[in-house]
Amino acid sequence: MGLGSRFASIVESRGPLCVGIDPSTDSLRTAGLPDTAAGALEFGRAVVAVAAPRVGIVKPQVAYFERFGSAGYGALELLIREARDAGLVVIADAKRGDIGSTMEGYASAWLGDGPLQSDALTVSPYQGFAALEPAFSRAEANGATVFVLSSTSNPDADHVQRASIASETLPALVARYARERSGDATTVGVVVGATRGLAARGLTASDLDGLLILAPGFGAQGASLTDISHIFGAASPNVIPSVSRSVVHDGLANAATAIEEHLRELGL
Amino acid sequence: MGLGSRFASIVESRGPLCVGIDPSTDSLRTAGLPDTAAGALEFGRAVVAVAAPRVGIVKPQVAYFERFGSAGYGALELLIREARDAGLVVIADAKRGDIGSTMEGYASAWLGDGPLQSDALTVSPYQGFAALEPAFSRAEANGATVFVLSSTSNPDADHVQRASIASETLPALVARYARERSGDATTVGVVVGATRGLAARGLTASDLDGLLILAPGFGAQGASLTDISHIFGAASPNVIPSVSRSVVHDGLANAATAIEEHLRELGL
Repeated sequence: MGLGSRFASIVESRGPLCVGIDPSTDSLRTAGLPDTAAGALEFGRAVVAVAAPRVGIVKPQVAYFERFGSAGYGALELLIREARDAGLVVIADAKRGDIGSTMEGYASAWLGDGPLQSDALTVSPYQGFAALEPAFSRAEANGATVFVLSSTSNPDADHVQRASIASETLPALVARYARERSGDATTVGVVVGATRGLAARGLTASDLDGLLILAPGFGAQGASLTDISHIFGAASPNVIPSVSRSVVHDGLANAATAIEEHLRELGL
Repeated sequence: MGLGSRFASIVESRGPLCVGIDPSTDSLRTAGLPDTAAGALEFGRAVVAVAAPRVGIVKPQVAYFERFGSAGYGALELLIREARDAGLVVIADAKRGDIGSTMEGYASAWLGDGPLQSDALTVSPYQGFAALEPAFSRAEANGATVFVLSSTSNPDADHVQRASIASETLPALVARYARERSGDATTVGVVVGATRGLAARGLTASDLDGLLILAPGFGAQGASLTDISHIFGAASPNVIPSVSRSVVHDGLANAATAIEEHLRELGL
């Protein structure tokens, strides 16, 4: 089905909060789970169980599954399927990027009808925006969304992201290409971190006009969900704020309480 | 183990040629193999069998395995292990990139001691060069090499890669950071496509001084192996030219002949 085609109804019924599923070594230890594919699956299932009655969107971080190789991917396949069966929209946070038939391989993996099929995918634009077209085409056909990295939450991203072409910064350039490709649909969105205001990122709210915005950086990374309109201004209605570590840092037993608190911060 | 620590002896004994393992839908069809994880494994094994007696380095393209989910990763794990057991150095062409503990997840997946352990990994710098440090640290400990995308082979890469900071282009900036991090070792290298000369990429040979250079774009993408010194100038001795489609485009039965021809083009 896809994220894009369901976004309005999700916001209407659940609000825009996205709960990350990040079974890092630290998170598994805090949860008292083994640092294995089975531990990652159990962790993910617990987050899904807590998230499903309360929020509309989850975001598994692929790296934490990939570190266990095929066993980790087996766990991720089960988790994605179970989350979607529970009515959740799944954003695969994979930050893939390549060219030509290789990019089509990634698009097929995450937006095709195989075992990792998700409702949205994050991608990285270093090899050029047009190189990502195989993912956009798949998303367009499925009602899914491809979130292209524009301005990320980490401070050292500046090493690359303050570069510009003819005085247009890379984050603004990515947003402009995304608007052009997405048209009035939700096929292409952007990733913009919430840890700083838009101006400090070389962006304005109008650069993001009409785009779905996946926004990491809340909770453990420092931004507060109460500040979305301050950070994103006129672009706020399309922001999907993502929280991960703050949901599980007091253990899985307290994850439901943490999610409720985040929903209150959003006024929900 | 690792690529970096073995590069000099590989060049001495086999030359620098890298043979790509790209089981795309098209390549599998040409090879008369099913478009499945089992087909990809059989394809990869055939390329390894042909490559092992003749060249030192192979480069599986991860996307073509990932499209089959955990089954594809199971095939890739076997293939990587068998290639390394056959004495080949394996570059995992995954173009991963993220931040913090997420990047450590990717570093652990490809450069740790898990089932996907390889001798080198390609990474993407959009989230900043320093964000890739977990991969550099792992490579440093293992004698492996991390190849950071600098200037890629596809023409539409210009959308992003001609951006600059204080008149330094992104490809040059990536190369400079790579030189600073790698020191006089082979921990960090760069990916620079061979489809155009360095000047057209905003690079000079001195930008690449001392760095290992993984160079796609030969064969099917248009560059000739006889032109390496023309394309890369003084940086040529550190170039690892990669060929993929040209090796298998006449079928697996002719792959050995294609590799012999490429070695002749290199004067080997």
